[in-house]
This record gives sequence, C-alpha cells and structure tokens, in this order.
Amino acid sequence: MTPRVPTIGVFDSGVGGLTVLGALLTQASAADYLYLGDTARLPYGSKSRATVARYAVSSARFLVAQGAEALVIACNTASALALDALRAAVDVPVIGVIETGATAALQSSETGDVMVIATAATVESHAYSAACRERGLRAIEKACPLLVPLVEEGWIEHPVTREIVGIYLDDLLSHAAAAGMTADTLVLGCTHYPLLRGVIDATLRERDSGPAVRVIDSAQVTAEQVVVRLALESSAQREPAVRFYATDSVEKFRTLGTRFLGRTIDGVELIDLGG
Amino acid sequence: MTPRVPTIGVFDSGVGGLTVLGALLTQASAADYLYLGDTARLPYGSKSRATVARYAVSSARFLVAQGAEALVIACNTASALALDALRAAVDVPVIGVIETGATAALQSSETGDVMVIATAATVESHAYSAACRERGLRAIEKACPLLVPLVEEGWIEHPVTREIVGIYLDDLLSHAAAAGMTADTLVLGCTHYPLLRGVIDATLRERDSGPAVRVIDSAQVTAEQVVVRLALESSAQREPAVRFYATDSVEKFRTLGTRFLGRTIDGVELIDLGG
Repeated sequence: MTPRVPTIGVFDSGVGGLTVLGALLTQASAADYLYLGDTARLPYGSKSRATVARYAVSSARFLVAQGAEALVIACNTASALALDALRAAVDVPVIGVIETGATAALQSSETGDVMVIATAATVESHAYSAACRERGLRAIEKACPLLVPLVEEGWIEHPVTREIVGIYLDDLLSHAAAAGMTADTLVLGCTHYPLLRGVIDATLRERDSGPAVRVIDSAQVTAEQVVVRLALESSAQREPAVRFYATDSVEKFRTLGTRFLGRTIDGVELIDLGG
Repeated sequence: MTPRVPTIGVFDSGVGGLTVLGALLTQASAADYLYLGDTARLPYGSKSRATVARYAVSSARFLVAQGAEALVIACNTASALALDALRAAVDVPVIGVIETGATAALQSSETGDVMVIATAATVESHAYSAACRERGLRAIEKACPLLVPLVEEGWIEHPVTREIVGIYLDDLLSHAAAAGMTADTLVLGCTHYPLLRGVIDATLRERDSGPAVRVIDSAQVTAEQVVVRLALESSAQREPAVRFYATDSVEKFRTLGTRFLGRTIDGVELIDLGG
C-alpha cells in the first residue's frame, strides 16, 4: 500500500526560499509542494513587524486554501517577525527557518558559541539570538545588507563579493573575539546566502582563527527537519509535484528563480493577495 | 501684498526622494511641501508596471486629498512606469524626475549623446531613452542595482563603493564607445545617486576618456524646473512648511531620511494606504 503523500506549502517573500524548496525536493521527496513568492510586496526585510505579519498571514492562508497540510516559512524575516501570528492564523503545522537553523547550530556547536549572518531586519529582530538562547547557545549576529543584491546581480564569484564577504566576516569574527566567544558555527540566516557558500567557506578558511568554523545552510537543515517533524518517508525516490505562485511578474520569478532552485521553473501562476 | 504660497506634494517609494525635497526646500522655497514615502511597499524597482501604477496612484490621491496643488514624482520607477496613470488619476500638474532629467540633459549636452545610470526597473522601462529621443538626444542606459544598497549601508566613500562605481561606469563608457557615441553628459537616474556624486565625479575624472562628462543630478534640476513650471517666486527667502508621511516604520524613515534630506526630520505621520 502506498502511503498518502502530503502537500506542503513553502512560502517566501520572493525567490530566495527556492533554495529551501530545492533542498526539500531532493531530501523530502515523499511530499508534493506549493511554493508562493510574495514578490509584489518584497522585500519584507525593510518592513515593520505588523506589516510583515499581515503579509505573511495572507500568504499562509492562501496556501492552506490551496491544500497545504503543513507550511514551511522559508523566509527569515517572516520566521523572525510573524511565526506566532502565523501559528495563530492557520490550523496546520508551521515550520520556520530560524528554529531549524538554531536546532542545527545546537547539533553542530561544541563550544556553544554561534555566529549568524542575516539581513538587517532579521538581525534587528534578534530572533536567532533568542532561538539560540532557548537551546543554551550564545549567538552573535551580523547584518549583511549587501549580500542579497550581490546575489541578485549574479556576482556569485566576483572579486567585489569576496571583498565584501571578507569585510562582513572580519567584522563578525572580531566582535565575537571581543565578546570572549569561541565560535565554531556560522548560520547562514538568509535564504540567498547558500549561493555564496563557496566564497563564505573560502573566506573562513583564509581567516583560520581558532577552531574550524562549520557553516549551517538553513535550506539543507530545514529539509532534514521537515522529514523528521512531518514523519515523511525519507527513502522515497519520487519526483514531487510542484505548483508555483507569485504575486508579481511571473517572468522575473521564472528567470531569477531558476538560479535559486537549480532547475528550470515553468508554469508560474500570478495571484493577487491585495495591496 | 504677499502672493499665496502653493502646497506641493512630493512622492517617492521611500526616502530617496528626500534628495529632491532637499533641493526644493532650498531652490523653490516659495511653496509649502507634503512628502510621502510609501515605505511599506518599497522598493518599486523590482515590481511590474501595473503594480507600480496602482501604488503610485493611491499615493498621489492621498497627497491631493491632503491639499497638494501640484505633484513632484521624486521616484524614477514611478515616473518611468506610472506617469500617464498618475496624470489620468489626479487633476493637478504632475512633474516627473525623468522628464526633468532629460530636459536638463538636452541643455547640457553638446554632442547629443547622453549616458544614464539607474535601477534595473528604470532601465528596463527605457523611459530615459524615450524621453531623450523625444528631445533629439541619443541615450545609453546602465542598470546599477548595487548602488542603492551601498548608499543605505552608508558606504558613501568606501573603497568597495569606488570599485563598484568604477566597474559600472567602465562598462557604460565602453558600451557607449562601442555604439559610436561621444557622450558628454551622465544623468543620475535614481534619487539615491546624488549621495555618491563625489565618487562618481572622481571616477569620471580618472577615466578622462574624450570630453569632460557633465553630471546631471536629477534632484537639483527637478527643483529648478519646478520653479519655472509652477511660476514660483524664485527670490523668496522663506522657510517652507513641510509635513512628512510614511506607510511603514516612521522611526526608520526619520533615521535614514535625515541622511538624504541633509537636515533633521521630526514628526513623521504613519498612514495606511492598504496592501
């Protein structure tokens, strides 16, 4: 007897969450997926908690109405600012990338000291610090507002990108040292950052300060935890069905999104959530 | 007898338009001002024409309802994508920064060849090319998506900013040369770019390719043309009254906005335009 395959809704303000969907399609293939990019209202990163919660709740309700039986909030800003509002608004399990990142940091860190890089809004919310503290970890956070536009410019291996990543990580490492921390784990607290994984790994190797730093890619660890929390068949070798929705320019979603998902996207449906 | 002082509404998706307001307060002081930053829905630069038009029209109607007798669209994206929709929606004169920039380019250029740097959305609209063509100019455009986040990061005189400005301008100059153009004018087609004027001027001086390139700051030239088109007293030495409205986080508007306006902002009113 073939077990029933659940439908999981994945939500982000834009295309960044497609790195999470990509990991889910590979590692959690015993499910079908709906992906919504709220591209008309992105970026959430510069907006207030009330506004982000309003946008996220309307997006979550849409996905549940389309049949989602669980939601993955693949948007760090929405996970930081709106997780409680989302859990109050819908009646299905809600998994946010900040909780999964902090849980993976706990499994990774031997010193208990963790570094997080993210957008300005995620850092200002201190949601990673709070999630790490709940797990007995100390965290230091650093806002890296230039990394998202560098990824969207496509300057993935560009010398300027290496320079900017170096400036950000040097600043973070020196603040961690000044705080007396022996950080051995770096959480990529933004769904765009996995595309810069190569530059980030190389920069950390060059710095070589203290213990080797392990990098937590929240897309990967979210997929792993979805399998566990939703009790999916982890061995299933199937091609999940995926439907894509965007609130603005499906053409741009398709073009930019392909880079994030790592495979061709076709058939994006334009929807209107108001606003 | 003191002439009646008109109220002018200035509109942008965020704080960038405050560079235009700053020029107006100095050069067009025979008016009072309302400034609206639609910060809950910024940036417009990544959104479609239909969405930008919808947002801009609701913002314009708000300003007219507050008493604006003329509107300055201090947002290149809205000027590029929504000027016709705005003129159809409200019954007051509407002045957009793209028209004023192209008119100033016509006054500046001796060769008739003009370069424009702007956001991706403004360039994709080709609104500057069209406005230049109407004035008998040839224009070449270049999208510079990293410059806005660099300004918002506060890296105004940073070596990385000089490097990125160098990469963008070298690319533009070589494309202009390849197209057989002798460009002598560069239009700053984004309200954030005046803050990078020093780096841009220095980069152009270093390159020294052909005739000296004159830089058109669309904030300055818009203020000059507002005085003419609205027949304001240009000699009036008065302190205009200003009211500020934002659709999200008035605190962030105040903090970031002060850098753009060049003076302290207090008393920002939070308004809700829906969405």
